[in-house]
Amino acid sequence: MKGAEQKMLRKVQYYETDRMGIAHHANYLHWMEEARILFMEELGFAYERMEAEGILSPVRAVQLEYLQSCTFGDLLTVEVRVLSFDKVVLRLGYTISKNGQDDCICRATSDHVFLDPEGHFVRIHRRLPEFTEKIEQCIHKQGRDVC
Amino acid sequence: MKGAEQKMLRKVQYYETDRMGIAHHANYLHWMEEARILFMEELGFAYERMEAEGILSPVRAVQLEYLQSCTFGDLLTVEVRVLSFDKVVLRLGYTISKNGQDDCICRATSDHVFLDPEGHFVRIHRRLPEFTEKIEQCIHKQGRDVC
Amino acid sequence: MKGAEQKMLRKVQYYETDRMGIAHHANYLHWMEEARILFMEELGFAYERMEAEGILSPVRAVQLEYLQSCTFGDLLTVEVRVLSFDKVVLRLGYTISKNGQDDCICRATSDHVFLDPEGHFVRIHRRLPEFTEKIEQCIHKQGRDVC
Amino acid sequence: MKGAEQKMLRKVQYYETDRMGIAHHANYLHWMEEARILFMEELGFAYERMEAEGILSPVRAVQLEYLQSCTFGDLLTVEVRVLSFDKVVLRLGYTISKNGQDDCICRATSDHVFLDPEGHFVRIHRRLPEFTEKIEQCIHKQGRDVC
Repeated sequence: MKGAEQKMLRKVQYYETDRMGIAHHANYLHWMEEARILFMEELGFAYERMEAEGILSPVRAVQLEYLQSCTFGDLLTVEVRVLSFDKVVLRLGYTISKNGQDDCICRATSDHVFLDPEGHFVRIHRRLPEFTEKIEQCIHKQGRDVC
Repeated sequence: MKGAEQKMLRKVQYYETDRMGIAHHANYLHWMEEARILFMEELGFAYERMEAEGILSPVRAVQLEYLQSCTFGDLLTVEVRVLSFDKVVLRLGYTISKNGQDDCICRATSDHVFLDPEGHFVRIHRRLPEFTEKIEQCIHKQGRDVC
Repeated sequence: MKGAEQKMLRKVQYYETDRMGIAHHANYLHWMEEARILFMEELGFAYERMEAEGILSPVRAVQLEYLQSCTFGDLLTVEVRVLSFDKVVLRLGYTISKNGQDDCICRATSDHVFLDPEGHFVRIHRRLPEFTEKIEQCIHKQGRDVC
Repeated sequence: MKGAEQKMLRKVQYYETDRMGIAHHANYLHWMEEARILFMEELGFAYERMEAEGILSPVRAVQLEYLQSCTFGDLLTVEVRVLSFDKVVLRLGYTISKNGQDDCICRATSDHVFLDPEGHFVRIHRRLPEFTEKIEQCIHKQGRDVC
């Protein structure tokens, strides 16, 4: 995936496998979360900062396609980028590959909204305009790079 | 959801919550799996039987929409039904509600293919015609009931 | 185990297995937690009540002996009882068996203390004397029954 | 812990927290497993090699003392060393600390046996004498260093 903002390397753990001998499909949501948190950190919006601002961004939807399996010992590369942001819903895209190969073993998206601790929608472009700005830069930059 | 083939009741466990105070979104894939396994069992195709026949049915794709959260102590109802089956991909639909309320807290689908232990596609309608038959009955029956 | 206060039945889930084909050893702590929460509920001290009283009881120590394995589809019986309570540390004992067999597949203990939300020790026998009373009754009752 | 053979650094993940706001106590068994696998790898006995030799080493017992909690974002140091090996049971010791502090937040042990794929005990000092040798060296080396 060209235009990726964040590349995370991550080994598949033994406790993530199931009796089919492969990583259980629920773990991919953990890996996506790990990569997303690093991505936000690199953008300057670490979880701790958002929390201090009183902004939560729960997951509203996910979509995953499992193209190949992976197992204990495989070294995963999880790439994250911004797909869209309409000021309410932020959609991130993920591609996972293994052992330095080009093949994508999983393609996924996650949708996020922004809430205050009482659960009300936060107008993030007013509350944290520099966040909206950064996110929009990501979309533009990727727009140029991605095939 | 009318036309559901299987209703599973399931308490949210303490260890399934995260520090936002709600069940972590990855657990929903566990609950879907639990409900799917019961559903297949009721159709007469328990996991053990499929395994004995040498047929695996890994997850190829999932989609989840998280509409409301749930937490420790909530009693979930997970309903499963067959959405489609084109002889290659079986798509199941899920709705999750909590504490006997009508509101759906999560809507989801999962796609499955049928493989032999070497990872080759199995022509399930030839290998296990009674499976295809049963699954098609589920679609038809649901076709009549669902709004 | 004679003298058990609580017997919980629980199927091993597919997602709890690992590539050795058996339930991964970390899941036993989940099962112990599930059984402990039910046990406390039956004693009249459901988690919700303790939380409302402002009393947390984190795990201070655990010990597990894995005697036999179990796997997907096995029906577990998890039994809990009070081993000791010195007004500071509550020690619970667990035995896990499978599929109605007498053999114990796991023997375990967990130690718990009682804290307020600031993390200070709560003198539980003063704050909630009926709790101490109930717990002591469990020890005595078991004292008579257990071999 | 002086005499440690292996030091692993590992961030606590968001999905590892529970609604008490801290890492759930079952995850420590995952971290111990991660560190143990790295330790064995460094000794020259990677999981893959043992598997190729047809030797499994399931967990027979664990003991954990939770001294302090940790949470999302904490950087853990997990140290492993050999406590004892009587040719049947290998006992490993673990200490976990966080954020570069000296305080130990968790002290633990795990016991392992060596089995063939049929589940029979393997005389590891005959089957893989270089393993026994390495392990014994670890004990001696530590013997000199540890307070």
